[in-house]
Amino acid sequence: MNTVGLVAFALVGATKAIREEFDVFGVAVVGLVTAFAGGATRDLLVNRVPLALRSVGEISLGMLGVGLAVVVSIVLDSPDDHPVTLFSDAVGLAAFTTAGAIVATDAGVSGFGVVAIATINAVGGGAFADILLDRSPFILFDDFYASCAVLGGSTYWIAVTVGATGSTAAAVCAAVTVGTRMAAVTYGWTLPTAQMLGLARRETGNR
Amino acid sequence: MNTVGLVAFALVGATKAIREEFDVFGVAVVGLVTAFAGGATRDLLVNRVPLALRSVGEISLGMLGVGLAVVVSIVLDSPDDHPVTLFSDAVGLAAFTTAGAIVATDAGVSGFGVVAIATINAVGGGAFADILLDRSPFILFDDFYASCAVLGGSTYWIAVTVGATGSTAAAVCAAVTVGTRMAAVTYGWTLPTAQMLGLARRETGNR
Amino acid sequence: MNTVGLVAFALVGATKAIREEFDVFGVAVVGLVTAFAGGATRDLLVNRVPLALRSVGEISLGMLGVGLAVVVSIVLDSPDDHPVTLFSDAVGLAAFTTAGAIVATDAGVSGFGVVAIATINAVGGGAFADILLDRSPFILFDDFYASCAVLGGSTYWIAVTVGATGSTAAAVCAAVTVGTRMAAVTYGWTLPTAQMLGLARRETGNR
Repeated sequence: MNTVGLVAFALVGATKAIREEFDVFGVAVVGLVTAFAGGATRDLLVNRVPLALRSVGEISLGMLGVGLAVVVSIVLDSPDDHPVTLFSDAVGLAAFTTAGAIVATDAGVSGFGVVAIATINAVGGGAFADILLDRSPFILFDDFYASCAVLGGSTYWIAVTVGATGSTAAAVCAAVTVGTRMAAVTYGWTLPTAQMLGLARRETGNR
Repeated sequence: MNTVGLVAFALVGATKAIREEFDVFGVAVVGLVTAFAGGATRDLLVNRVPLALRSVGEISLGMLGVGLAVVVSIVLDSPDDHPVTLFSDAVGLAAFTTAGAIVATDAGVSGFGVVAIATINAVGGGAFADILLDRSPFILFDDFYASCAVLGGSTYWIAVTVGATGSTAAAVCAAVTVGTRMAAVTYGWTLPTAQMLGLARRETGNR
Repeated sequence: MNTVGLVAFALVGATKAIREEFDVFGVAVVGLVTAFAGGATRDLLVNRVPLALRSVGEISLGMLGVGLAVVVSIVLDSPDDHPVTLFSDAVGLAAFTTAGAIVATDAGVSGFGVVAIATINAVGGGAFADILLDRSPFILFDDFYASCAVLGGSTYWIAVTVGATGSTAAAVCAAVTVGTRMAAVTYGWTLPTAQMLGLARRETGNR
């Protein structure tokens, strides 16, 4: 799952950078940031040297995703919207959420810390890539994406708290994350804004 | 003071995100980032696991601030400009500056390091929130805000250097920060640009 | 070399902030971020308290660069494009790449980790400064700049791997970085985009 995720995340990031006409270095950086910055932030938060800087295999997978993005962008207009990519990306979201929840639990942080680190592991790379592309992270105003990681991470924490083994908690976390994400893609889920909820006035001419 | 600060900072950040019509996840993230990213950066710089990930109480206060922002945005157009918010925010600025100065001094960094970490603790969360909102951090070109943290942090360092006890230094630091901030709000202080000082040519059509 | 680099990087960053009409605090922050954020990120990645927060001498050099930017911006329109600045900046790029490669090798990361940390040390400060200025880091789509750090870092890693001493590897790394950078400036090198390589379709109206 982690393998699929790294390749899919790097492909999605590299595709966005190709669309912005970044040069080949920029495309590689944005692809690798999308794949690895979430995990690197997780490692920094629990005081570890980032795994991506120690393991050669991980980076090779990221590079494969970047290369794949360049290759498929010849034949496809939006390789990041292709069903295969969307599904691989959901698998990656689940793998990264689970990995973050496991590392956070081992580090002994609070329940909020587990959910926060799981979510950062899963979506931090994409958010950082959006900042490099000079836009707000899409997870903050669009789609139902980071919420799947929040739900998955919460599930992991609840499972561990009620006494489940680590592997059971990981399986349930991954299932909830990928399940809610595929449902969100299929049914076009989005989260409401405060304006939609009637909780804030809509300003004219805004956004 | 820390309690007031966390709630005020989360409210200010969440209000900005509501105004940008971020979804409820985005509003919560920007609110919590405003309240906690400065402290988390401080902890990373001195190699600690961020307190916000370990303590449940802190996060609850941040969530309270986010909820408060949603509630008051029904009745107020700009809850972040309300006098109560401005004063609470100044109290938070002072509390976070002091906390940063204490942690930095304990970590044994240089005098510049103490001032830098105190300032990052106080204004780093708001600066990061501005980046998430796809704008330059307002502290870099507007208002007299981060300067209060610089003055407070410098005061702490000077007080400790001349032999004051930690609690005296903390009290003086907090007083200087909140005092200069309220004066800045009251009298509309801003810092000059190089152009205003006649030190650089103004380019036409810029900004 | 490190001294020249710190002053040059701070000058380049401060000049960009002056041009955006940031206030004097903002100019100082962007200048110091350009000079020190790359090294600070390097230190965080290998779990050290950033050197810039411990050493007083380093910060003084950064401040000197900021002051120099303010002074020369009175007489020059673009002090960051002056040949002296371009050469000093190339020297700094080489010094920071080499420092990053040495620290990374000592930390025992992978070959990719050495190149990544050397590159982040060299260009991370400038990239972060661009984010503070609300733009995409120029290294991702323009010029031939970060690539010099990638080539220098790779050279260091190859040299160490084939058995060269640390000081030989450092000398070769610095020579490759500064040499390729001055060649890039002289001959106007840029990296191609995927579109230029015919690997992706150019979208109309983009960028």
